[in-house]
Amino acid sequence: MDNGMTTYYKTQDPSLKSWVKSANGPECPFPIQNLPYGAFSTAANPAPRIGVAIGDHVLDLSVLEKAGLLPQSEGCFSAPVLNGFMGLGAAVWSDTRATISALLEKENSRLRDDSALRAGALVPLSDVTLHMPVQVGDFTDFYASREHATNVGTMFRDPENALMPNWLHIPIGYNGRASTVVVSGTDIHRPCGQVKAPDQAAPSFRPSGKLDMELEMGALVGTGNPLGQPVTVEQAREMIFGYVLLNDWSARDIQVWEYQPLGPFQAKAFATTISPWVVTAEALEPFRVSGPSQDPVPLPYLQQTAANNYDLNLKVTLQPAGAASPAAICETNFRYMYWSSPQQLAHHASSGCAMRPGDLLGSGTISGPTPASWGSLLELTWNGRDPLTLPEGQTRTFIEDGDSLTLTGWCQGDGYRIGFGEAEGTILPPVPHPAGG
Amino acid sequence: MDNGMTTYYKTQDPSLKSWVKSANGPECPFPIQNLPYGAFSTAANPAPRIGVAIGDHVLDLSVLEKAGLLPQSEGCFSAPVLNGFMGLGAAVWSDTRATISALLEKENSRLRDDSALRAGALVPLSDVTLHMPVQVGDFTDFYASREHATNVGTMFRDPENALMPNWLHIPIGYNGRASTVVVSGTDIHRPCGQVKAPDQAAPSFRPSGKLDMELEMGALVGTGNPLGQPVTVEQAREMIFGYVLLNDWSARDIQVWEYQPLGPFQAKAFATTISPWVVTAEALEPFRVSGPSQDPVPLPYLQQTAANNYDLNLKVTLQPAGAASPAAICETNFRYMYWSSPQQLAHHASSGCAMRPGDLLGSGTISGPTPASWGSLLELTWNGRDPLTLPEGQTRTFIEDGDSLTLTGWCQGDGYRIGFGEAEGTILPPVPHPAGG
Repeated sequence: MDNGMTTYYKTQDPSLKSWVKSANGPECPFPIQNLPYGAFSTAANPAPRIGVAIGDHVLDLSVLEKAGLLPQSEGCFSAPVLNGFMGLGAAVWSDTRATISALLEKENSRLRDDSALRAGALVPLSDVTLHMPVQVGDFTDFYASREHATNVGTMFRDPENALMPNWLHIPIGYNGRASTVVVSGTDIHRPCGQVKAPDQAAPSFRPSGKLDMELEMGALVGTGNPLGQPVTVEQAREMIFGYVLLNDWSARDIQVWEYQPLGPFQAKAFATTISPWVVTAEALEPFRVSGPSQDPVPLPYLQQTAANNYDLNLKVTLQPAGAASPAAICETNFRYMYWSSPQQLAHHASSGCAMRPGDLLGSGTISGPTPASWGSLLELTWNGRDPLTLPEGQTRTFIEDGDSLTLTGWCQGDGYRIGFGEAEGTILPPVPHPAGG
Repeated sequence: MDNGMTTYYKTQDPSLKSWVKSANGPECPFPIQNLPYGAFSTAANPAPRIGVAIGDHVLDLSVLEKAGLLPQSEGCFSAPVLNGFMGLGAAVWSDTRATISALLEKENSRLRDDSALRAGALVPLSDVTLHMPVQVGDFTDFYASREHATNVGTMFRDPENALMPNWLHIPIGYNGRASTVVVSGTDIHRPCGQVKAPDQAAPSFRPSGKLDMELEMGALVGTGNPLGQPVTVEQAREMIFGYVLLNDWSARDIQVWEYQPLGPFQAKAFATTISPWVVTAEALEPFRVSGPSQDPVPLPYLQQTAANNYDLNLKVTLQPAGAASPAAICETNFRYMYWSSPQQLAHHASSGCAMRPGDLLGSGTISGPTPASWGSLLELTWNGRDPLTLPEGQTRTFIEDGDSLTLTGWCQGDGYRIGFGEAEGTILPPVPHPAGG
């Protein structure tokens, strides 16, 4: 056969090149080794559908599917979200990725030389609107960086006992709000809520004065487990379809008043921003590394025998309204997480809780060992005590109206990068409440 | 016209009778004044579709829809869940209810005398399987009974300061797990999880030894609000489509070890049982009552000018495996709730959090003023200190394997009852973890 579909390519091979030339630069986020999935639309065809990013283009998988080149996907790429494809399982994910890689490989003529098909399938990234890549079933957020939990515990509790007694035993997490997970580029109004300073007798309802970001990664569950059936850490790793960047916006003043005893609620319910491209676990395979050693040894149901962290560089920039350029405020790495995403997922299912395709697990704020690697303004400014001064002279304790926050991330391969694109959100002024103050 | 479709009936009129004779008894849970919606299937047609309960039958609305008798519903009754119909809005809900009421009214001949249509549309309840009536988008659980919060605070904190400082100001709530909301009749395996007694040095992973129920009502959001747009309490009430019974199963020993600082997680993630019939807010209109007076006066965004509680009798029975009959362990009333469901919903949207059709709001455990009206075994047995003795001689502190718990509820009208059916779940032994102990 000459259509490349039966040839298996090692899809992570650093030497692979694409006939989409923009994909071959050493700093391109979307080389042929990446092939992240997303949902997009165009002016000519406003129906969202699934594509992969390649160089500065999107490959429209719904077109390839209709042309019969992706027989594995059962029509799922014409859907507006990835849930259907994710539910097909790991063997289909891997086989489909190999097929797409083959079709984009430099020497493969099937799509490269079919100008009509190519014209319909390859769309410039600058011409597309990106949408939520999945319908999020449940969104869960963890608290799994030891440095982050230690910083928060030091600030609000006791520096001598910064970690709660359960923290080294359990990947602490809570249920988040799925309806307000939004895609990069969605503007967000500053939330209002109940706040009460310690010296105030009663709370008031007003715009948050301590609006923060949290740098996280989001793991997307691809295949689920039935109600009542827990899974091992290794099984959990195989259930994860891929990862996105995630900004868990947080209103610290609302949070501190409301969170006892049932945890954060409206302080985090107003929005969570994710990046539009889902980088598959398979593309990240070469970047697996071990996390910090775990002492005490976790209970058997949380023990992992494989390296389940990723060497993934992360950066946050803040650009005030009117500023000439974004300023980096945090640089860190996903490898620092104490509890890995597979451990988090195994814990999540340990009670028999059912997971479904499209469930989203926020890693928790990713803070590293140095102050510049802390993943929230709460930590970077030590709850406002130490304002940041940006290169253009502005100072920040927390986020101001008009600020644009952008998360980026990439794995550095041998001559190529696995990029995540970005998760951006701009804060708009608060909306007045219809009931008044 | 003689098909009854243009005639408006006062659907709550106590004097209304149906030609479905079983609906007319004074204790029938499903009289013509009720008309609760549910999803059902039959052996002959295993595709779930929407019906209303009437007497000892289900009226198959997909059949009426296809026959052109429900022009308002836009085909939504042929769907397996109510979300589409709920999204059509309050005017359609009301108009559709009036049409269904008219078609079932004793003197209306349109359906009564059309034997072919009637045979296809009216199915004995004993012949149907009931399914989840909605696809739950987000599940939120509140903590809104003053008696319950006081009991819990007295038990675990300080009897002198049982309520947290925020409790009288905020309808305290947290995000629950949507994937494990199950319909009445679904068996549930006892969950396993991390537990640690105060005198143990380290936690262990084992089956919960303190498995509990929580008697709640669930409010189903019918129409949503967009991201960033809060709503008033009155608007919130109009957004609620209807109510179900809800048992928020809780593993107390898992909860007490995991819940600091982010709230309950695996202790409640394994299952939440709801009743299959959604009783509409419109059917409950005659039973609206004021709740307890609120002091301090809530902030303006939480103030309500109308009576937003319901006079709704509630009961829980426990039947051990092999017992001859169920034993009542709690009798209470929904009217005792300090924070009403509309207040909860208005608070939920106060940050700009978007609500969607199918979102479920658990009221929180409903405990009344007397010990027999407390809505959890935690309270009924005072955390196991005071075991219950059942009429057949068994004793209980918490739930044992094989126990069946059933919630029932009804509003008492003048000669009729608005019944909720039941929310039943039986506890099965734990499933061994695939990773071992």
